[in-house]
Amino acid sequence: MNASITPPDMYIPTFDDVLSAHDRIKPYIHKTPVLTSSYLNALTGADLYFKCENFQKAGAFKVRGASNAVFGLSDEKATRGVATHSSGNHALSLSYAAGRRGIKATVVMPETAPAAKKAAVRGYGGEVLECEPSLSAREAMLTELVERTGADFVHPYNDERVIAGQATCSLELHEEVGELDAIVAPIGGGGMISGTCLTMSNLSPSTAIYAAEPANADDAYRSFKAGHIIEDDAPQTIADGLKVSLRPRTWHFVSNFVSDVLLCTEQEIIDAMLLTWQRMKIVIEPSCAVPLAVILNNPDVFAGKRVGVVITGGNVDMNKLPWMQGSA
Amino acid sequence: MNASITPPDMYIPTFDDVLSAHDRIKPYIHKTPVLTSSYLNALTGADLYFKCENFQKAGAFKVRGASNAVFGLSDEKATRGVATHSSGNHALSLSYAAGRRGIKATVVMPETAPAAKKAAVRGYGGEVLECEPSLSAREAMLTELVERTGADFVHPYNDERVIAGQATCSLELHEEVGELDAIVAPIGGGGMISGTCLTMSNLSPSTAIYAAEPANADDAYRSFKAGHIIEDDAPQTIADGLKVSLRPRTWHFVSNFVSDVLLCTEQEIIDAMLLTWQRMKIVIEPSCAVPLAVILNNPDVFAGKRVGVVITGGNVDMNKLPWMQGSA
Repeated sequence: MNASITPPDMYIPTFDDVLSAHDRIKPYIHKTPVLTSSYLNALTGADLYFKCENFQKAGAFKVRGASNAVFGLSDEKATRGVATHSSGNHALSLSYAAGRRGIKATVVMPETAPAAKKAAVRGYGGEVLECEPSLSAREAMLTELVERTGADFVHPYNDERVIAGQATCSLELHEEVGELDAIVAPIGGGGMISGTCLTMSNLSPSTAIYAAEPANADDAYRSFKAGHIIEDDAPQTIADGLKVSLRPRTWHFVSNFVSDVLLCTEQEIIDAMLLTWQRMKIVIEPSCAVPLAVILNNPDVFAGKRVGVVITGGNVDMNKLPWMQGSA
Repeated sequence: MNASITPPDMYIPTFDDVLSAHDRIKPYIHKTPVLTSSYLNALTGADLYFKCENFQKAGAFKVRGASNAVFGLSDEKATRGVATHSSGNHALSLSYAAGRRGIKATVVMPETAPAAKKAAVRGYGGEVLECEPSLSAREAMLTELVERTGADFVHPYNDERVIAGQATCSLELHEEVGELDAIVAPIGGGGMISGTCLTMSNLSPSTAIYAAEPANADDAYRSFKAGHIIEDDAPQTIADGLKVSLRPRTWHFVSNFVSDVLLCTEQEIIDAMLLTWQRMKIVIEPSCAVPLAVILNNPDVFAGKRVGVVITGGNVDMNKLPWMQGSA
């Protein structure tokens, strides 16, 4: 465990925020099922409890945090809408939540993002603003948008409302399966893992929390070992939800509450993804195969334990499946 | 409804047999979840309740009937094992059930069957006997096997124990979701649809039962319209679980209790399969996309109704997905 370097003026969400978030978002989210697999239990020697956020509204856990932000706005603020930058599940989720509240969501996306992702955001009622494919262009457009419209910026993970929302996932898991020895969740920017830390440090401090990360995008691993945030420069991994880097709010939780960051290779991710589809008969994204991959390559850590596994989402391009030659 | 032509000496299972079957097989099967999709409800105008037997042990509902047959054997009969001919889910299911009871299962399969299917049977502990790829060779080998070993022949569907076992699926569905206006299940040999008729004609006679069939393998449709069994000669359909023809026990239920047989094209099956993977995030076989396909192409029959849909199985070759060019 590393020393916290939380800036003194940064609001860190509390467990009360998690309970409030759960009450606030319940009408708009699914209480997703927890699945088990006797095959995977035999293979790993552990009792695995898969919290299936791939069945969540908009196809991923991100709808928890996005809904908490959207439905926590005052009526007056809400009239000016919400905005974000994302080409992934947060964009879909914010569009979904805004649609349920009847307000506008605007998503800044690089013009080079796949047409299918833009169409998916529009399908949930969001507006897409296209920018040049650079960080500076994206931030400039978002800043201009917020200044012009007064829209509320909902960051994909470095936002206390988002972290409190994601924390409701492990709250439901704990309610359903009781005490766990460990929970494993993927780590990208750290929103889900921070929410998991927030809930479990209050409900069950003895539960070890493991962050699972692709070796090809190991910025959280290196940050954890170094004791400060290290950002990756354009990592390449099939787990495209995990390319982003930690930020101060998520670093607070990672540095204080995570037991370890465990890595896996790209091939291990593909193998774990295919195994999950074949054996559990569920559609999961590459990003959420990362926890099973690290459980499989760390039997000494997990065998004999009751382990919660967060399946973060199921939004997959069915025409590009990584185990099929020539499809990727 | 057609006149019954049930031979007078054929035992037809009763609802008491279904209740006994459920008690008998409960320790060996999953009570599978019922999923809903607001997207598919909006698309069809119906309230759809998907009974997810793709999550069942051995990956399909067939384990219900196979387990009922295996665990209903006397200890003395059981020592001689069980046998069947099948290259599909019944072979896996019988092997699984026999393994749980600790007895031998032998499966006669054409030598031309895919290696993966033979390996899957062996993976569940079954023995594979390979025969020439003809009906006469298969029957000769099975007859010889049964005479030599005294193994109990468990037909994939024309068996009262199997039908009573499959009937436990709609028993659970009815327990979980209550009264339904209709249930739709795929029809091949008719085991699942017969079980559905058996349960619902007792529990809820007003529930309409629809059999869903590929137009390319429409022997049940033609039988239903003609009032007698018509067999197909080697039909070609992607729904490979639905190529077989009705037999007297299943014809009894189809002719007496099915409201209609509804057809769909191969492309409609592929589209419904892909839609289910994309929107429900579950892995289903082509055969069990057939019900959703007929619901989509018969809005006049289903709109405004509460409809149960049996998702029969999830055993798919992940390297041959029908919507991907060049993969089939």
